[in-house]
Amino acid sequence: MSERSPVEMVREHISAHDKLIGLFGMEIVGVSPGSAEVSMVVKEEHLNAAGLCHGGTIFSLADVAFALACNSHGNMALALEVSVNFLRPAKVGEAITATASELNLGKSTGLYSIEVRNGDGKLLAFFKATAFRFQDRSVADCG
Amino acid sequence: MSERSPVEMVREHISAHDKLIGLFGMEIVGVSPGSAEVSMVVKEEHLNAAGLCHGGTIFSLADVAFALACNSHGNMALALEVSVNFLRPAKVGEAITATASELNLGKSTGLYSIEVRNGDGKLLAFFKATAFRFQDRSVADCG
Amino acid sequence: MSERSPVEMVREHISAHDKLIGLFGMEIVGVSPGSAEVSMVVKEEHLNAAGLCHGGTIFSLADVAFALACNSHGNMALALEVSVNFLRPAKVGEAITATASELNLGKSTGLYSIEVRNGDGKLLAFFKATAFRFQDRSVADCG
Amino acid sequence: MSERSPVEMVREHISAHDKLIGLFGMEIVGVSPGSAEVSMVVKEEHLNAAGLCHGGTIFSLADVAFALACNSHGNMALALEVSVNFLRPAKVGEAITATASELNLGKSTGLYSIEVRNGDGKLLAFFKATAFRFQDRSVADCG
Repeated sequence: MSERSPVEMVREHISAHDKLIGLFGMEIVGVSPGSAEVSMVVKEEHLNAAGLCHGGTIFSLADVAFALACNSHGNMALALEVSVNFLRPAKVGEAITATASELNLGKSTGLYSIEVRNGDGKLLAFFKATAFRFQDRSVADCG
Repeated sequence: MSERSPVEMVREHISAHDKLIGLFGMEIVGVSPGSAEVSMVVKEEHLNAAGLCHGGTIFSLADVAFALACNSHGNMALALEVSVNFLRPAKVGEAITATASELNLGKSTGLYSIEVRNGDGKLLAFFKATAFRFQDRSVADCG
Repeated sequence: MSERSPVEMVREHISAHDKLIGLFGMEIVGVSPGSAEVSMVVKEEHLNAAGLCHGGTIFSLADVAFALACNSHGNMALALEVSVNFLRPAKVGEAITATASELNLGKSTGLYSIEVRNGDGKLLAFFKATAFRFQDRSVADCG
Repeated sequence: MSERSPVEMVREHISAHDKLIGLFGMEIVGVSPGSAEVSMVVKEEHLNAAGLCHGGTIFSLADVAFALACNSHGNMALALEVSVNFLRPAKVGEAITATASELNLGKSTGLYSIEVRNGDGKLLAFFKATAFRFQDRSVADCG
């Protein structure tokens, strides 16, 4: 009889259906309305040719935090535009965490920052991300 | 006794050491000075919770094309800033291709566009990417 | 009795009402569906503290070309997200031209590149710009 | 005999030589190491063709705050890449303020956010801006 909140439904749906969570070994640390935190440990298989954590790995981690945050209000939301500055490298064995925060919530779009930090709290990458919000469906209706 | 070109060395080094190439099943189609093409087939394990090809998958593909293009002159180059617009979804079974092109080559930075298209030539995502160029080493010195 | 096209109406309306056109002395060179060209001559009053053409000047020029291009289909469109790389300086006395081109036209959003070049055709700045498109009104309904 | 700080020198130099400060009627509210605040009142001459404060106006205001913040350490710094989301319109008569904050300071580049707010504290635009830092000169050496 319990009514689940949009946050709970979105967390459960994304947790079950986002395949990069498994591919990269991510863990959803927390989700609340407009924000989310996701972490992972950098492994050999996540590196680029310079021997550092791949930009695609860091983007994937941040993108999952972004998806959780922008879908957390119930409306389905998809990434429209995302930009990122890469600031410091991450290495094998490091735990890295992406924290998505809502800067603005409009009717059709939402704006988010996502910070990726290492275990020492150093900022590795900073994202500015725009979501397009659909009026009439939830991501939990998909799949 | 043959001398290998920077393009050949970079292609060989990135091909051997970029771990996301294997993780996503990417294929390097071609590299020339300032440009590169990389493709992959979207599989179940590359999807997001909406059942579409994950933003992290598309970014990873584009990032490998970008790395090949911006390192192709011999100097080591790393992503400084990357922005992307997601325009159309890709689905399981589709072959998608990222083409990186050089818009400007400066002493310390280079500017690239990366277009990701599906098999019909439709534009799925458009990237603008800035590389920081190191003066004194090559990516092939790494690892 | 002649019917004016959306391109003509938008050009006329923006030409009459965009106040930065006058403030910076811009000239609308051409507008067609999805594209536009605007030019100006850099003057003393457009410089930054390094004695170079101000980023705000270059952005303003590009923004007018963008507005013409994204409103050229008739629907009112406003800038949602714009990013720019500054590549080369412009100096007093130089004529600079912004050319906006449509990379994608969706129902709710459009994607544009804007190139700003000097008289020698050198690329001074490259923009990626996203417009939000309103379904039910034209910019010519404003003001 | 008093030694002026980099902050004082940069504020004085930009205040005296940045021509858009005068063109738009901006006021430098404050500068400290890595941050700056600049405000202006929106006038008729700053509007776009939709009757709202022009994107070029908002960018120019933010760009001056950015220039103050990224030059405040003494090294000359120029905008390399800037991206902005436009969130709410500003109208004639409104006082708007741009606040630049340093997110990261590296040897060759610095990363800044700039928030533009109206008198009610509402966020009108959010910028992510990357500066390229020159090792061997100050903006106060220019002009």
